[in-house]
Amino acid sequence: MSHNTFGHLFRATTWGESHGPALGCVVDGCPPGIPLTEADVQVWLDKRRPGQGRFVSQRREADAVKILSGVFEDERTNGQVTTGTPISMLIENVDQRSRDYADIAQKFRPGHADYPYFAKYGVRDYRGGGRQSARETAARVAAGAVARKVLGAGVGVRAALIQVGPLAVDRARWDWNEVERNPFWCPDAEMVERWEAHLEAVRKAGSSTGAIVEVEALGVPAGWGAPIYGKLDAEIAAAMMSINASKGVEVGAGFAAAALSGAENADEMRMGNDGAPVFLSNNAGGVLGGISTGQPVVARVAFKPTSSIPTLRRSIDEAGAEVEIRTTGRHDPCVGIRATPVVEAMMACVLADAMLRQRGQTGRVEPIPVGPR
Amino acid sequence: MSHNTFGHLFRATTWGESHGPALGCVVDGCPPGIPLTEADVQVWLDKRRPGQGRFVSQRREADAVKILSGVFEDERTNGQVTTGTPISMLIENVDQRSRDYADIAQKFRPGHADYPYFAKYGVRDYRGGGRQSARETAARVAAGAVARKVLGAGVGVRAALIQVGPLAVDRARWDWNEVERNPFWCPDAEMVERWEAHLEAVRKAGSSTGAIVEVEALGVPAGWGAPIYGKLDAEIAAAMMSINASKGVEVGAGFAAAALSGAENADEMRMGNDGAPVFLSNNAGGVLGGISTGQPVVARVAFKPTSSIPTLRRSIDEAGAEVEIRTTGRHDPCVGIRATPVVEAMMACVLADAMLRQRGQTGRVEPIPVGPR
Amino acid sequence: MSHNTFGHLFRATTWGESHGPALGCVVDGCPPGIPLTEADVQVWLDKRRPGQGRFVSQRREADAVKILSGVFEDERTNGQVTTGTPISMLIENVDQRSRDYADIAQKFRPGHADYPYFAKYGVRDYRGGGRQSARETAARVAAGAVARKVLGAGVGVRAALIQVGPLAVDRARWDWNEVERNPFWCPDAEMVERWEAHLEAVRKAGSSTGAIVEVEALGVPAGWGAPIYGKLDAEIAAAMMSINASKGVEVGAGFAAAALSGAENADEMRMGNDGAPVFLSNNAGGVLGGISTGQPVVARVAFKPTSSIPTLRRSIDEAGAEVEIRTTGRHDPCVGIRATPVVEAMMACVLADAMLRQRGQTGRVEPIPVGPR
Amino acid sequence: MSHNTFGHLFRATTWGESHGPALGCVVDGCPPGIPLTEADVQVWLDKRRPGQGRFVSQRREADAVKILSGVFEDERTNGQVTTGTPISMLIENVDQRSRDYADIAQKFRPGHADYPYFAKYGVRDYRGGGRQSARETAARVAAGAVARKVLGAGVGVRAALIQVGPLAVDRARWDWNEVERNPFWCPDAEMVERWEAHLEAVRKAGSSTGAIVEVEALGVPAGWGAPIYGKLDAEIAAAMMSINASKGVEVGAGFAAAALSGAENADEMRMGNDGAPVFLSNNAGGVLGGISTGQPVVARVAFKPTSSIPTLRRSIDEAGAEVEIRTTGRHDPCVGIRATPVVEAMMACVLADAMLRQRGQTGRVEPIPVGPR
Repeated sequence: MSHNTFGHLFRATTWGESHGPALGCVVDGCPPGIPLTEADVQVWLDKRRPGQGRFVSQRREADAVKILSGVFEDERTNGQVTTGTPISMLIENVDQRSRDYADIAQKFRPGHADYPYFAKYGVRDYRGGGRQSARETAARVAAGAVARKVLGAGVGVRAALIQVGPLAVDRARWDWNEVERNPFWCPDAEMVERWEAHLEAVRKAGSSTGAIVEVEALGVPAGWGAPIYGKLDAEIAAAMMSINASKGVEVGAGFAAAALSGAENADEMRMGNDGAPVFLSNNAGGVLGGISTGQPVVARVAFKPTSSIPTLRRSIDEAGAEVEIRTTGRHDPCVGIRATPVVEAMMACVLADAMLRQRGQTGRVEPIPVGPR
Repeated sequence: MSHNTFGHLFRATTWGESHGPALGCVVDGCPPGIPLTEADVQVWLDKRRPGQGRFVSQRREADAVKILSGVFEDERTNGQVTTGTPISMLIENVDQRSRDYADIAQKFRPGHADYPYFAKYGVRDYRGGGRQSARETAARVAAGAVARKVLGAGVGVRAALIQVGPLAVDRARWDWNEVERNPFWCPDAEMVERWEAHLEAVRKAGSSTGAIVEVEALGVPAGWGAPIYGKLDAEIAAAMMSINASKGVEVGAGFAAAALSGAENADEMRMGNDGAPVFLSNNAGGVLGGISTGQPVVARVAFKPTSSIPTLRRSIDEAGAEVEIRTTGRHDPCVGIRATPVVEAMMACVLADAMLRQRGQTGRVEPIPVGPR
Repeated sequence: MSHNTFGHLFRATTWGESHGPALGCVVDGCPPGIPLTEADVQVWLDKRRPGQGRFVSQRREADAVKILSGVFEDERTNGQVTTGTPISMLIENVDQRSRDYADIAQKFRPGHADYPYFAKYGVRDYRGGGRQSARETAARVAAGAVARKVLGAGVGVRAALIQVGPLAVDRARWDWNEVERNPFWCPDAEMVERWEAHLEAVRKAGSSTGAIVEVEALGVPAGWGAPIYGKLDAEIAAAMMSINASKGVEVGAGFAAAALSGAENADEMRMGNDGAPVFLSNNAGGVLGGISTGQPVVARVAFKPTSSIPTLRRSIDEAGAEVEIRTTGRHDPCVGIRATPVVEAMMACVLADAMLRQRGQTGRVEPIPVGPR
Repeated sequence: MSHNTFGHLFRATTWGESHGPALGCVVDGCPPGIPLTEADVQVWLDKRRPGQGRFVSQRREADAVKILSGVFEDERTNGQVTTGTPISMLIENVDQRSRDYADIAQKFRPGHADYPYFAKYGVRDYRGGGRQSARETAARVAAGAVARKVLGAGVGVRAALIQVGPLAVDRARWDWNEVERNPFWCPDAEMVERWEAHLEAVRKAGSSTGAIVEVEALGVPAGWGAPIYGKLDAEIAAAMMSINASKGVEVGAGFAAAALSGAENADEMRMGNDGAPVFLSNNAGGVLGGISTGQPVVARVAFKPTSSIPTLRRSIDEAGAEVEIRTTGRHDPCVGIRATPVVEAMMACVLADAMLRQRGQTGRVEPIPVGPR
């Protein structure tokens, strides 16, 4: 990952500011012959779209994606497919109300990257945060939609919100079906109301709240990941930490592993029926030595609370004057909610890239089977 | 990061197996004219070296580094300096007792990458874990020693062990001077004895324990880090997660940020005397929007317990037979201890690379000052 | 260079097919604060644009560029400047007459990449050559326009056509002012009529002709280029060979150097007034050991004749049938003519990238001066 | 290619100076399970080794390679094979007579990179040219030996010297068997004596001579190469131009294509028996649109005459004084001769990387067959 491109063989380059005319991404290295239409991408963008509930930004964006290159349809191909050339996707910004931001043009909002962008570049598009805006994550979701197609039906990626503020779900009540039924991607039906109340309370207090997202990838074969410095979990860590507002990433038992004993932590194995081990637990989160084990790949990502809040905060401006800032505008009280599909997208992109690299180096996607030779 | 190379302008490529003749790294892109001798590297390797205490591996390795290229000394240069060409560093393996591993040649040790290496490559150097061995981290420490030279005296990187098993230090007693006085890099003098007792207990139980390392970088100017996909914290996350046994990374408030309110979390600013803000807290951990803020860069890394333990564990072998494994040999009961200087090294490497890239794109290392124009 | 991205710190990613809705590029890593408007880019696109003379394609394309991101204007910046974030540029395809190509949808045109694209990907956008079309070079020219801004006024890049078919210019009559006065970028006024006659002749014969372009970069300081595998001339070679229809690249004396003696070839030096040597010749073409010497950087690029010709040619189709193909449509009889601004653009991009990398590694753009210490 | 690493999936990092203790390379990304011993590498190094004839450097170097990592042998693997981890290879410098160079420590040798290294880095290992020495090419040959193993027996790479000074071989007399029988890799038996006489003459005149190498790769399937900026010929161009003393690269008809008509140049096709076209000529040199066509991949590389000659040449020194330099020492009068195996090695490396990337993106190494669906 470097500058505005991530991935090695499956690569995405994103561009665009919050209040510019458009944003987009170029997905390069996609295998040819994969059915791909705008609808295939739109479905994931719709999951991330603002303006969909009381607890996410009220900015109205259709987030309608246009595919400008890299696909082709003719009578022989039975529908539009990728051609192996770069897939350029564009999303127009429609509802960019720049007037909301005029009063903070020269002020550095606490918790935002206003000051570091200034310190680094000397000039910045302050409208809606410019390039630092979470609006950029729409481009990631578009890339992730393509990545899912590359991975195919055998690999599934799904995420859930597992904590809002101090309120964590009860894992005993985990139900993946529940995730699609509430606006929080919450797997614990009993937690939904409590999160609503908490979000209402922080909003009334002129504040916001953090969250934790858990993501799992099912069906990832053993063998993906390129040690030592392209380890699958290292790339997941970078991908997740690159998402706006993320402050931590863990895989498998994660930070809790520090408190475990070696006898508790190491996942024991028995022999399965398909030439692969059956693991008796998954503290590893599906990755050992940076390589997938064949178990579900499990990660968690911590998101800080939204920094744009109406409560007055102390700061300075570009001229060095001390100021107080109250951020109004249309902001999610909990960015973690809408980050959920972004986390999924980044996981999909990392896996697609790992799959292609594994195939490049070894000629295989599937693992070497265990068994008598 | 890809394959066995990390970094962009400041790049390190490492190679070598635990029980091969040697291991090493090639540091490429180092600025020219920087004083660098083998002693400058050796001092950091000595910190990481095995055989130095009761609670680390008893393998005896001098870990004496040889610099084979990239430096030059003549009468005009006042001592040996870097030339801008690749710096090849080599460490011979002296005490590789391969016989220790013969009985596990075909078995997959639980918690180790034996199975995924097999599944990925079909062949693996099983002696001491081969390439998956933490012995590879010596090469990282050598690279980190060069990175520190690139960063110069103005940037300091230091780490401490803050948790062993369930026992966390009391931050009120934090004393950086204490860190060098005990074999655990522990900043809390009162915790040392308790950790000793805990380590003795898990060893007697035939087990091991996890740990958490905290690292901070002081003196990093605002402006380093390359959004969106070369964010400073994303690269830190990848670097740390690539270390053996690491399972989680967090920056600043990290996972705890999820439970904070926006009013608590966002670090307020007042004007400092040097053209930069003074932050009133550091929940950001010195990074906002992937760019350094000028505050200390703070990260924590969770390490799982050592997987090599003498307790019998269930597993399988390459032929698919179910087996039980007892890992004897010379293993650290807590890999987190010796990981501490490795965490420092990776932080130094990430920062050196960020510094050179910042200078490449903007022509500056220092931030644009705040103040009247 | 990889997939559809080139460059390291100054990077361009291009996308788009000849007959898709649009094409474009994303320039990443551009330094901030550089004045840049659409007009700054358009001027170079206008040089390359089709439909401008009898001897270039009659396709009518305005090639109007839109900048979608990476620039910002407010009252404080005195006009629109780059922000350091990715610059997305888009050019709509207006005059894509797809009907011209329907009859060759399944045939492989000789001299074109139709067959290898089929062999590689299995599916291809056959309309106008799809991704293999020279129309992609518009995106390179847009990137080159930004690169020129990065290089600044001190570095000039200019190219001329020095041979069309067998007719080479007389270097004794070389006049750079002449280059802008004729439609061939020809520096030899007396050659213009002869080239016209030759082009008319090959067109009447239903054929086409090759050409050679010479490019020079003035004002490049000594010290740019990153040995051993990022040598300035190696990157120039890759950049030029990546241009459609290019078959050869040489630097300085080039292939003629093979016939020289060492005494003739090596450029002698005397001391200049500015801390740098004066070279008494430039057989090196401004590059020694892959690093610029401070002399003009000189390269030549050979272009094969246009493969799209109305003469019947033997080929096969996707079903394996043997066919004969007559390529009608709107094609340049000599692609070398319009390649001239593309060669300039690629040289500018390579130099901008080398400049930023030199600055990254050494902190300087200018060379270390020669002289008493 | 960047800094001292080249390749994407199959990557080589080289290090070392002419008169340091050793030089070497790290080959990363090699597929696992490939038989590889030191002897497999040594055979190619022996071809390149100095001290083997009257017309190459008399420096005595065994150039004995040691493989330090990345291979493993046990009873189950039937000999030593690659493990998929980085292969570190080391060659010790034995006969580095540094005293030869003391008198030119501060002088810039004409035709060498002494001045640009000084201008770039400010400090340089002047002994034998340090990093700019052609001795570095031993590391490339070692990497090339591994690349040949990756390509397998189906792909052959061979090169010949086709011109020394002004004397070009007669292609009508081309005999590949002859190439191994004379010290010049000359395919034209009748030219050998004339080259000897020419080399003797330039040596007596205190001078040297240039040369041209032709390389061909047989058995490369159609479909390799990654357009637009990872084109196979673009990567060949970069690889060849990165070799010491190279000044030009051409593919297929190369510069001669400029003088051809479109009807002459474009290679016609008829249908073959194996699902692939038969081309009726190979002006393309096996590459169209940057992708291999299935024909032999043919390139030529021009080398300038050796710059180290005993004739007095005008130059300057680091202090800015004007000096005259006579380069004695042990130098090849024609570097092109020993460059021949280096050209082969670079071609093999480029192809191995292209093969792995093709497999990564498409899952295939072989082309999509032409024929009825």
